[in-house]
Amino acid sequence: MNKAIILAGGQGKRMKADMPKPLFKVLGEPMLEWVISACEKGGVSDICVVKGFMGEMIDQYLGGRCQTVLQAERLGTGHAVMQAVPFLKEDTSGNTLVLCGDAPFIDAETISDALVIHTQQGNAVTVITAELEDPKSYGRIIRTESGISGIVEKKDASEEQLKIKEVNSGAYWFRTADLIDLLGKITNNNVQNEYYLTDTISIALSESKKAGAYKSGNPDLILGANDRKDLLELNNIARMAVIEKHLINGVEFVCTDGVIIERDVEIGAGTQIQPGTILRKGTKIGKNCIIGPNALAENCAFGDNVSFNASQAYDSTIESGVTVGPYVHIRPDSHIKSGVHIGDFVEIKNSTIGEKTAIAHLAYIGDSDIGKKVNIGCGTVTVNYDGISKSRCIIGDNCFIGCNTNLIAPVKLGKAVYTAAGTTVTRDVPDYALAIDRGVMKVNEGYTLRKLKNKK
Amino acid sequence: MNKAIILAGGQGKRMKADMPKPLFKVLGEPMLEWVISACEKGGVSDICVVKGFMGEMIDQYLGGRCQTVLQAERLGTGHAVMQAVPFLKEDTSGNTLVLCGDAPFIDAETISDALVIHTQQGNAVTVITAELEDPKSYGRIIRTESGISGIVEKKDASEEQLKIKEVNSGAYWFRTADLIDLLGKITNNNVQNEYYLTDTISIALSESKKAGAYKSGNPDLILGANDRKDLLELNNIARMAVIEKHLINGVEFVCTDGVIIERDVEIGAGTQIQPGTILRKGTKIGKNCIIGPNALAENCAFGDNVSFNASQAYDSTIESGVTVGPYVHIRPDSHIKSGVHIGDFVEIKNSTIGEKTAIAHLAYIGDSDIGKKVNIGCGTVTVNYDGISKSRCIIGDNCFIGCNTNLIAPVKLGKAVYTAAGTTVTRDVPDYALAIDRGVMKVNEGYTLRKLKNKK
Amino acid sequence: MNKAIILAGGQGKRMKADMPKPLFKVLGEPMLEWVISACEKGGVSDICVVKGFMGEMIDQYLGGRCQTVLQAERLGTGHAVMQAVPFLKEDTSGNTLVLCGDAPFIDAETISDALVIHTQQGNAVTVITAELEDPKSYGRIIRTESGISGIVEKKDASEEQLKIKEVNSGAYWFRTADLIDLLGKITNNNVQNEYYLTDTISIALSESKKAGAYKSGNPDLILGANDRKDLLELNNIARMAVIEKHLINGVEFVCTDGVIIERDVEIGAGTQIQPGTILRKGTKIGKNCIIGPNALAENCAFGDNVSFNASQAYDSTIESGVTVGPYVHIRPDSHIKSGVHIGDFVEIKNSTIGEKTAIAHLAYIGDSDIGKKVNIGCGTVTVNYDGISKSRCIIGDNCFIGCNTNLIAPVKLGKAVYTAAGTTVTRDVPDYALAIDRGVMKVNEGYTLRKLKNKK
Repeated sequence: MNKAIILAGGQGKRMKADMPKPLFKVLGEPMLEWVISACEKGGVSDICVVKGFMGEMIDQYLGGRCQTVLQAERLGTGHAVMQAVPFLKEDTSGNTLVLCGDAPFIDAETISDALVIHTQQGNAVTVITAELEDPKSYGRIIRTESGISGIVEKKDASEEQLKIKEVNSGAYWFRTADLIDLLGKITNNNVQNEYYLTDTISIALSESKKAGAYKSGNPDLILGANDRKDLLELNNIARMAVIEKHLINGVEFVCTDGVIIERDVEIGAGTQIQPGTILRKGTKIGKNCIIGPNALAENCAFGDNVSFNASQAYDSTIESGVTVGPYVHIRPDSHIKSGVHIGDFVEIKNSTIGEKTAIAHLAYIGDSDIGKKVNIGCGTVTVNYDGISKSRCIIGDNCFIGCNTNLIAPVKLGKAVYTAAGTTVTRDVPDYALAIDRGVMKVNEGYTLRKLKNKK
Repeated sequence: MNKAIILAGGQGKRMKADMPKPLFKVLGEPMLEWVISACEKGGVSDICVVKGFMGEMIDQYLGGRCQTVLQAERLGTGHAVMQAVPFLKEDTSGNTLVLCGDAPFIDAETISDALVIHTQQGNAVTVITAELEDPKSYGRIIRTESGISGIVEKKDASEEQLKIKEVNSGAYWFRTADLIDLLGKITNNNVQNEYYLTDTISIALSESKKAGAYKSGNPDLILGANDRKDLLELNNIARMAVIEKHLINGVEFVCTDGVIIERDVEIGAGTQIQPGTILRKGTKIGKNCIIGPNALAENCAFGDNVSFNASQAYDSTIESGVTVGPYVHIRPDSHIKSGVHIGDFVEIKNSTIGEKTAIAHLAYIGDSDIGKKVNIGCGTVTVNYDGISKSRCIIGDNCFIGCNTNLIAPVKLGKAVYTAAGTTVTRDVPDYALAIDRGVMKVNEGYTLRKLKNKK
Repeated sequence: MNKAIILAGGQGKRMKADMPKPLFKVLGEPMLEWVISACEKGGVSDICVVKGFMGEMIDQYLGGRCQTVLQAERLGTGHAVMQAVPFLKEDTSGNTLVLCGDAPFIDAETISDALVIHTQQGNAVTVITAELEDPKSYGRIIRTESGISGIVEKKDASEEQLKIKEVNSGAYWFRTADLIDLLGKITNNNVQNEYYLTDTISIALSESKKAGAYKSGNPDLILGANDRKDLLELNNIARMAVIEKHLINGVEFVCTDGVIIERDVEIGAGTQIQPGTILRKGTKIGKNCIIGPNALAENCAFGDNVSFNASQAYDSTIESGVTVGPYVHIRPDSHIKSGVHIGDFVEIKNSTIGEKTAIAHLAYIGDSDIGKKVNIGCGTVTVNYDGISKSRCIIGDNCFIGCNTNLIAPVKLGKAVYTAAGTTVTRDVPDYALAIDRGVMKVNEGYTLRKLKNKK
């Protein structure tokens, strides 16, 4: 019944990249995503995105999640909303929220609270506003006893009006039927020859319809980005807001420099996040972990009491009590079970590592299933690729893999198998056996003396 | 003769962790530790800590360094100090300092200077105060010609008193005998039914004893932490104060982002600390070193002219002129002698590396004693663990260890020994000998063509 | 015709290092270098540097690029310039710029614009000035209708003069002939017994010569550094100015913490620089790259669409579409061709890596020429050093190097050569052949059970 129209036609020339402005990212997500998710959390899920510059990128990003409509020419905000009239006519019984696709900090609470005011007051249109210490060149809200009498642009404002600190955020609730009606009445009789959505307010008032304003407590909702510097500022605001949320939840930060935590990341109380740590979308960290310094996790689940020092992990699960790092790379589809120790210069890929197994240094475990309490020696390599296809290594519980062992996949080692250091394991090994491939070490006496003599 | 009572009974609910508040850390040390060390540096080493919430953790942390006494119920600061009366009665001849265990920035100079004023003025009690630009809700100090007439809480203050910027820090010097006497006279006849330590002042004055105030030049001593955000702020203050100390000493910082240097770390003049560098307790760095970016050292001694790039070291010694990194992990009990070069992806553990030895890449040296001017080839592994016990490798001066050599411990190589690349060294090698364990390389012509044909 | 004299005799005692103050670095370059490069960009390339404290370090740094002259005693700025009179007399027809060697932010535009004013107004001397919100103790500029009537030091200033916000930067343009003449007339009849360059102004005016002022729009040109804290502040100003330049050019920064980009670095639009990234002198990055977090590049050329994650590169070329990291070390004289993938824990040194080759993990490629579409297995080591000399490995297109292969240089592998895992390649291998050096893997059944029994 209630709908939203998101204006996403802008170019953002000063960004110096061929991309619609609403697709530039704040904390890892396009600004458009921030706006859509605020709509959805605010209870509005029937959304039409008005695209313009490079609109196909908007469609590609959305992948059919929302309707889109093209504004082929850039003739103002009113003109943009007009393109969505067919969307509005699908159901005219409710209210329609109009939002800017490049003002990412609109929030669900503002959306739903503004709707309450909008409907309680019986407004045709309700402007969402905020109060700014410095109202800059934003349009000033002229309040009356019963609502508002209009929005005055800075250049048209009187001395008295310039002092008004309540300004237009560019977001509005309309009664859908009124919006369709008012859009039909706005004109482009102005210097720019554009159709302004704000003109709907004076038209509504002239028809004795009610216009109101809802002042949000969140002044950041006004912020947008016209260039990379603005975008950096939005990122900083979002970054510190997320960190503050985790501080309140009992997460410890000694220094937040270089810490970037994306919005949906969850972190348990008592966990310490050290500087330079980046936690990306889909990551969930348990309690009492020590993460960082300079850790990076993307779409990972970490249990409690994990230590993850100067390492990177992607699309993987790390259970409780695991210690990782420094300098470890965990690639997608790895499952590190509880109590595992992964030391320095180790890569794990698409593998399961059983409980309490140790992979202490300089090893590559790919496409493998490692049992419990296995000791993987330094320099061990799972030879999972023969130049044509990839195969798996299976290593039973309690195995002891000697240093610089090559495990030629596919291969299966039973329980408690030993491999001698330097062995290349080319076939399966039964439980409790030793695999060894070693010549006889010869000693060539006086070699160095002869070598030095030859040099001269 | 002089004593201190430290109030450490608080819980810190908003920290969201089951730990007494004074044990939360600032720059790697519990706040309680900051307070104790200030006492000790200020000349007061006879200390009683009043514990409360999870008091056993306080005892566990202190390990018997100070007396502790339990405040079983939380009935106010006066009640907390009452629990220490037996401690006071051990020697009533001197003065007693009362401090908050969660206000870490009390300093030794303030403690000793306040004692001078306290005794010179013949006060029964001397409040330690500070002047704040914004006195917030701290108790205002009402000064008189001869001392103070009391401390007025914000809610009880007149318009004129609210303007007073000198406030109570919560730290006091008492004449010990007077403190015992005054504690016996305070009551809980107030809204909260608590015993307030500040009531001692009015009682003292009513008995014609003198009360005074000592204004410290360090307003940070007033700061405490009630939640993780406060704690982060305390960490930032401490962090920047330590960095400033090193700047004055001639240490170079181009950018301090992510730099955390704990309090007791020493750094020589001319050393450059690059961003992301963490130097923990017990670390001492010489002159003209380059440390970082993203270096971490804990309890290490570095000589002069060390380069330590993007690496981590723990509980080890690195002598002058050593170059380390990037991406090196030096584990405890290592001793890297002067002029050594340790390159990338190398782990050293519990080993001695002799002068001018090079370990340039991808190696693990554990439980070993390496001589001077040794060249450790890429991929060398000291096989120090056989699944049951650990043993040592001993390598003489001027050895040349070939790439991907396995050294099966225990093993001893003499002077100037060569090992051929890929050799597994299984027994001792005499001086000047070559150890080699290598099959004959066979060439299987046309292999790739057949392989590709089979694939089809 | 136009000349510059740069005063570089200062010591900088509070820096606590034995180095002339102008050699302390801002963003990787000595302050003196900043001043010289501003001169040169401003069109003044005939430069004399007046050295003093440890002047031989100035000569060593300059390496003959500029004339230098020694001020053996420190008798004031006028005395310093007097030492350069022979330099001035080489050509007295033009104008001479006098600059402080430890005020790095003088800019080319100010230099050339000030010269225009200087010559248009026919001044004997033109002071370069700036307006400061807080003029501190800088000398105030007293403007008149036709120029200036002098510079008043703070201590000599009237109430009215103290309010003047335009101050002396310590940089001046002189008509060369007038400068020689005026230097001959200044005296040391003052409390310090020093010769002040500012005295030239009153002397010029007293001789009815014209003195003027040029107010620069860049107030930072006034800033110098007397201690490490000042120097850190200069670094921060320079650091943020460089980042802002790149933001305007369309470079993306989500968080600038720990980011240090030196002045001459070029970065294409659409490239993202992540926190902790350091880009040093001589580095050029293409478009749409992702650099960082915690990347370091020094004197490198990167193509477009490069991903360079948590790695370091020096003096090398990385072509378009290459992915590097995490934890890679690219040492000097490497050339990584387009489409190459270099994974974790890999060192490349003085090598060429052909198009689309993959070196995914734990390898060392040194002094080698690798062809196209080669797959370098994990643990591969180019054994480029035999303890006496270094040699090269040559690997043809489409080779597949098995894991833990040792390539003993000098050695040449033809096209599409395979090496079996664990092989030590000791001689050349023809096209399409397999090189294998492997014993027979033996299985010793029940080994583990016996081992455990023996243990008991």
